[in-house]
Amino acid sequence: MDVVEFVECSIGRWRSQRSGHSLALSHFEEVRSTIDIVSLPKTAPEIIELCKYSGVDMADAVSPFQMSWQGESDWDENEIIKGSCILVPIPNTNNLKKGKLLRSQGYAETIPAMGEYYITEDETFVLHTEYDSAAAEEKIWFHTPNLRFRISLIKTSDGNGVLTASFSSEIRSLSTA
Amino acid sequence: MDVVEFVECSIGRWRSQRSGHSLALSHFEEVRSTIDIVSLPKTAPEIIELCKYSGVDMADAVSPFQMSWQGESDWDENEIIKGSCILVPIPNTNNLKKGKLLRSQGYAETIPAMGEYYITEDETFVLHTEYDSAAAEEKIWFHTPNLRFRISLIKTSDGNGVLTASFSSEIRSLSTA
Repeated sequence: MDVVEFVECSIGRWRSQRSGHSLALSHFEEVRSTIDIVSLPKTAPEIIELCKYSGVDMADAVSPFQMSWQGESDWDENEIIKGSCILVPIPNTNNLKKGKLLRSQGYAETIPAMGEYYITEDETFVLHTEYDSAAAEEKIWFHTPNLRFRISLIKTSDGNGVLTASFSSEIRSLSTA
Repeated sequence: MDVVEFVECSIGRWRSQRSGHSLALSHFEEVRSTIDIVSLPKTAPEIIELCKYSGVDMADAVSPFQMSWQGESDWDENEIIKGSCILVPIPNTNNLKKGKLLRSQGYAETIPAMGEYYITEDETFVLHTEYDSAAAEEKIWFHTPNLRFRISLIKTSDGNGVLTASFSSEIRSLSTA
């Protein structure tokens, strides 16, 4: 599986269950959400802008997509968690399994971010992103075409201490509702 | 990392946070527990008995160990979850990274079980176990020597449907209390 196939497999609506572990405090967080992943044309103005911002040639971009989510956490039942970001893979020359991933809004910090991805032999998509004051490591893999799992770690910026570890089970929603 | 090193790294006391996702029902379970992993001598009577029960030559066993756990779940706060089992790796000839794992008590069913393990290039210990009416898939990896993660899937016996997916963050307990 390369990044083009990985994005193709990801397109759709997913019902997500996410558990967060705050390691220092032994706290749990539970989040239920709906995630929509849609492909975008390479010529979309926001893609062109993000490539320019990140200093990469937009000719190198493949399979840009948008991810939107809406959900609720047991930490604050009155608050709706909602957001959206644009992601643009920039594979290395002649190797779709490794490269950079631009995102219009980071996971650990809400500014544009550039991560490094690779796809392992057992078809896990691994992403490392460094932010000003934190770092993130994500692993995403498909158990079946309709069930995928995701591990996300938020680390201190030196990459050693893990602040939170979270695990998502994502089931493809076959209804269009 | 081979299975001998993997067991060595696992010896000790771990403070575990586990989140279970019941996929059909979108239910969450939260479990906090203490896990003790101690190595056992190859000559311990329970090792000899388990090898005999499983029909394997005990000369092929390496690094047997015992795992005990005690914890509590938010599903039943009055109940203490407690148990213990013995595990015996039986590597393939000349390949410590792949083989069988005997356990005196299974994860999906409380009878002795024999799983197939392998260690991936990125040092994840992967274990598949088939039971009479279910199958289990576990992945365990060390983020640092003192922090490890574990994914456990309980599947229908045909291996397709995932009934529950759980994620554990396990921090080495440096106190001896």
